[in-house]
Amino acid sequence: MVESWSFLDTAESNFRPLVVIELAKGTKEETIEWFTKRIVDKKANGGAQLLIKPLVTENGVENIYLVGASHLRLLLGAEAVGLVKECSDNSMRTFTYSSRKTFKHYADDNHDFLTMAECQYIIKHELENLRARDEKMIPGYPQAKLYPGKSIVRRLLTSGILIQIFPLHDREELKKLSHSWYGRVKIGYQPLDDIRCYFGETIALYFGFLEYFTFALIPMAVIGIPYYVFAWEDYDKYVMFATFNLLWSTVILEVWKRMCAILTYRWGTLLMKRQFEEPRPGFHGVLGINPVTGREEPMYSSIKRQLRIYLVSLPFVCLCLYFSLYVMMIYFDLEQWALDYHKENESNFSSLMLYVPSIIYAIVIEIMNLIYRYAAEFLTSWENHRLESSYQNHLILKVLVFNFLNCFASLFYIAFVMFDMKLLRQSLATLLITSQILNQFAESLLPYWLQKRYNRRMRKRMCSTKTDMDLSLDEQVNMEKEMGTYLGTFDDYLELFLQFGYVSLFSCVYPLAAVFAVLNNITEIYSDALKMCRVYKRPFAEPTANIGVWQLAFETMSVISVVTNCILIGMSPEVDALFPDSKMDLVLTVALVEHLLLAIKFIMAFVIPDKPRDIQMKLAKLEFESLEALKQQVRAFQMQLHFLLIHH
Amino acid sequence: MVESWSFLDTAESNFRPLVVIELAKGTKEETIEWFTKRIVDKKANGGAQLLIKPLVTENGVENIYLVGASHLRLLLGAEAVGLVKECSDNSMRTFTYSSRKTFKHYADDNHDFLTMAECQYIIKHELENLRARDEKMIPGYPQAKLYPGKSIVRRLLTSGILIQIFPLHDREELKKLSHSWYGRVKIGYQPLDDIRCYFGETIALYFGFLEYFTFALIPMAVIGIPYYVFAWEDYDKYVMFATFNLLWSTVILEVWKRMCAILTYRWGTLLMKRQFEEPRPGFHGVLGINPVTGREEPMYSSIKRQLRIYLVSLPFVCLCLYFSLYVMMIYFDLEQWALDYHKENESNFSSLMLYVPSIIYAIVIEIMNLIYRYAAEFLTSWENHRLESSYQNHLILKVLVFNFLNCFASLFYIAFVMFDMKLLRQSLATLLITSQILNQFAESLLPYWLQKRYNRRMRKRMCSTKTDMDLSLDEQVNMEKEMGTYLGTFDDYLELFLQFGYVSLFSCVYPLAAVFAVLNNITEIYSDALKMCRVYKRPFAEPTANIGVWQLAFETMSVISVVTNCILIGMSPEVDALFPDSKMDLVLTVALVEHLLLAIKFIMAFVIPDKPRDIQMKLAKLEFESLEALKQQVRAFQMQLHFLLIHH
Repeated sequence: MVESWSFLDTAESNFRPLVVIELAKGTKEETIEWFTKRIVDKKANGGAQLLIKPLVTENGVENIYLVGASHLRLLLGAEAVGLVKECSDNSMRTFTYSSRKTFKHYADDNHDFLTMAECQYIIKHELENLRARDEKMIPGYPQAKLYPGKSIVRRLLTSGILIQIFPLHDREELKKLSHSWYGRVKIGYQPLDDIRCYFGETIALYFGFLEYFTFALIPMAVIGIPYYVFAWEDYDKYVMFATFNLLWSTVILEVWKRMCAILTYRWGTLLMKRQFEEPRPGFHGVLGINPVTGREEPMYSSIKRQLRIYLVSLPFVCLCLYFSLYVMMIYFDLEQWALDYHKENESNFSSLMLYVPSIIYAIVIEIMNLIYRYAAEFLTSWENHRLESSYQNHLILKVLVFNFLNCFASLFYIAFVMFDMKLLRQSLATLLITSQILNQFAESLLPYWLQKRYNRRMRKRMCSTKTDMDLSLDEQVNMEKEMGTYLGTFDDYLELFLQFGYVSLFSCVYPLAAVFAVLNNITEIYSDALKMCRVYKRPFAEPTANIGVWQLAFETMSVISVVTNCILIGMSPEVDALFPDSKMDLVLTVALVEHLLLAIKFIMAFVIPDKPRDIQMKLAKLEFESLEALKQQVRAFQMQLHFLLIHH
Repeated sequence: MVESWSFLDTAESNFRPLVVIELAKGTKEETIEWFTKRIVDKKANGGAQLLIKPLVTENGVENIYLVGASHLRLLLGAEAVGLVKECSDNSMRTFTYSSRKTFKHYADDNHDFLTMAECQYIIKHELENLRARDEKMIPGYPQAKLYPGKSIVRRLLTSGILIQIFPLHDREELKKLSHSWYGRVKIGYQPLDDIRCYFGETIALYFGFLEYFTFALIPMAVIGIPYYVFAWEDYDKYVMFATFNLLWSTVILEVWKRMCAILTYRWGTLLMKRQFEEPRPGFHGVLGINPVTGREEPMYSSIKRQLRIYLVSLPFVCLCLYFSLYVMMIYFDLEQWALDYHKENESNFSSLMLYVPSIIYAIVIEIMNLIYRYAAEFLTSWENHRLESSYQNHLILKVLVFNFLNCFASLFYIAFVMFDMKLLRQSLATLLITSQILNQFAESLLPYWLQKRYNRRMRKRMCSTKTDMDLSLDEQVNMEKEMGTYLGTFDDYLELFLQFGYVSLFSCVYPLAAVFAVLNNITEIYSDALKMCRVYKRPFAEPTANIGVWQLAFETMSVISVVTNCILIGMSPEVDALFPDSKMDLVLTVALVEHLLLAIKFIMAFVIPDKPRDIQMKLAKLEFESLEALKQQVRAFQMQLHFLLIHH
């Protein structure tokens, strides 16, 4: 960060490769020279002060570079990204180089103080913050324009010179992790802290949520089983089950917030200050002065963006929704046809045929979701949002609305227009199970199989019979760079969200849904773990303090499910029979119960604190300390001023 | 703050009295000496470094002291309380003494840079933060225990040695303010910025809300008038009115958040950092170590408090609610009796008698509210909350629940049990109008009249015919110390909250309610202004960024009113007639409409940003600057370290 330490950085004696940079084949020499110089240059000269080494393979130098950093550089980088670590007194504090000695496990020669994932995150941060100074373009590529403050790496990526940057796997660590994670069949918790150390907080939090959610579904599943086993058709019991379900879902979502606070406090991300958000890589516009930062950067009119959203994206989404409903009507025609066929020639085959339309429809739904996903990404990217967070929010909103309708419209139609509870149960089961099987297959098993086949071919080409552990560095890099890229937890959360919908929206009709969800999630943990460890490139760690917009999405789903369940119960013949005289009384009672349940939900959400008491205390203590420190600082500053005034 | 400036503080040449301290008669000399010494003592010696002067009246020295401070001391105090002021470049920034020259209107000789209200707030803050050091008790009063860090002023207040501390009025400013505020009949806005300068942000924000709310009700009132004038009984129109009302109330509450952000940004309180909250004055317990601050202070077991809340307070509140319902039933008996009487001997008198039960009930409601208010305050104080904010939240919750039931239970009963729309309209009108008249009388006119009579008597005793402006300082102090104390905006907001209930809960039955509310609020502005300027002691300014829990209360009311209005419309015979075949369809339609309205409300609340775009930008800019400054600071610190390492 300052020159006084830079001499240490020249000692490349123990260079440890952390991150791989792959440049396009045929990249001009002058570009490579300029780029590598900027990476190793001193901070004071506007460089990143990192270490870089070309990868030498048997075929000579390819355009692949390994990036590392000295221990000191990493510590200073940890301060720059605002990392929070545990102190010797067990409290969590923001790491600063000057207070390094107060941290747990810190020693000048302990190079494991920062985890490898943290080191890689720091390097990524430093690379992304490598900014153009007076360059007008990337040397050798006049069309790749630069302006002061533009991130060089982002421009290299968007102009195709830089193909990818990815962190290296640590084969040894990975083997340990995968053994304790999914290597043996066991009942127990996942090694969340180890996952966090290896993959970072976002991914660890997803697995934490998956595990928590699975445990939380177990009571529902346990209560649901007897309904199936004893074929209880008694609606009294269904009412009880639904009521339990609705209150339970509120409780689990509230308790998750507390669990999440406990996890992220331990990991330090609960305390991490939000960094100032830079424009996202794809954002483009005419150069102008940003009124907030006062820096030159691309500007894009907010009105134009609004026009794009409301005149193009919104109509497109509506059209897609209409199309999805159209496909649904075709499904009902098919269903009718299958039913007619079954009536005409009753046989084992024909009764099996009854399930075929649902299965086809489930597959079609998955395909439509996939295609829509691409369209939504294209549209949201075309809307040209300035910030990544705003892009993500618009994308998630688009995808959630469509997936919700696409998955549940047919069930709503069967329940509230056709009033066919038997068909509802059958459809629900088929949709749920088919989508679960498809997802597990498409998401983990297929990529795993492809990867395995590819690896086998690679090895054959290399004429070696080595195991993964014995691979040389260049073999490892070459293998990893061809692996798929993990695109984030979006799809994984979406899958859980839709599953939550299947379980809770119609829980009083099909209590067994929770059982399938639990079974699916147990295998999901294993297949997702497999996918993370074996199929994809290692992703960069991403610090995060909560599951963000998904919390809101799950809570909204749980409010909607109160409404649907109340209506379903109200429609059941058994409840109907309780009000023989007047339908009015029935409907009014149902409405009253619904409002009561909603009120209880809101009161519960209000009353249960989002953070456990001890975390609250720890946060209060930190806040108190920082206020005290500020006071001290003001006092010290004034003393200093006083000192200067007297002695000069 | 530091010694280097303290020599300035001895220059008492232009002592301006800001705050009055009244000690009990017969306070021991040693106590007075110790207390005044602590007030004038240097910061470094643990004093407040303020100026203090005894008030000399014709009767000699009474135990009344005037407190002031040097200009420099006030500027340093402004930094300590974290005041935010406007800079020369029109941005709002936290004031620091070292950057004082960058602020608008700052000049070393401009003593109006800080408003008088700000100066008084600073002095109050400094007095309250005058803390015991090694004293074990207040000298002369062995029973008044002290411990290191205990606020001396608070202990003096709780042991009755200190009677009161209040800021002085500025007669000249007050005359100007009252003239522009309520002195002339005019259509226009209140001088909110002047109110804020004189009374502080909390009170100015209340008047801002009152004004905004009155303007916001005008569209409802305007639409409501023709319903009365043309005696429209057509329910189509009522439906339209109710729908408009429901959406409108959401819009006004959301827009208020934006208005509030604009006001408090201009006043600087939107940016003020929350200070660390000290235990409230009444909090008591056994001395222990606070785990957050590490300081010695009274501790009280949270379990004990919970027991008090759930085993005493909660049952008591329930009992009160039951009692309120019991009184309501008596009212209905009375109502029945009046009706019978009217039927038997029909006359002008008897038709007037029809209104008497409602009027009596309205008066009883007000009295019950008042008594309950005292009980709630006693109970909440007995619950022994550590923080003022927690005390306030528990008090507000208690009072809101009771007042809501007490005021609206009879209306709910009439509407949804008796189904008597005519009686509902009549009751609503009587309750609304009676409570408005009672409130205006009890809150402003009566105290004003009492105060005026008292002042007249005082003057007679002083044998003077001077006007307020010519009063000498000691006459002014003696007059003001006898004035009532303004207890905060709680009652004023509560009144508006209940009014909002009357207007919105049954708006489709009685559209004229909005008209009465508007008329009441216009006079309310004048009577409240009168009350602030003439009846009460000047209150200390209290910085605040929003109306706090009242926003939530108003929003909850607006959600409840969606439900009540939908039911009312569903019950009307005209809507009934639209569904001649099936009551079911009617109820289902009403339920559907209700859910749609609720969904629209939530989406609107979600979509309308809480802060206007330009305020968002300004906040983002400030955040960016503070992050940049932090980076600079770290860099500067490292440079300094480097410098030291090289030169030593």
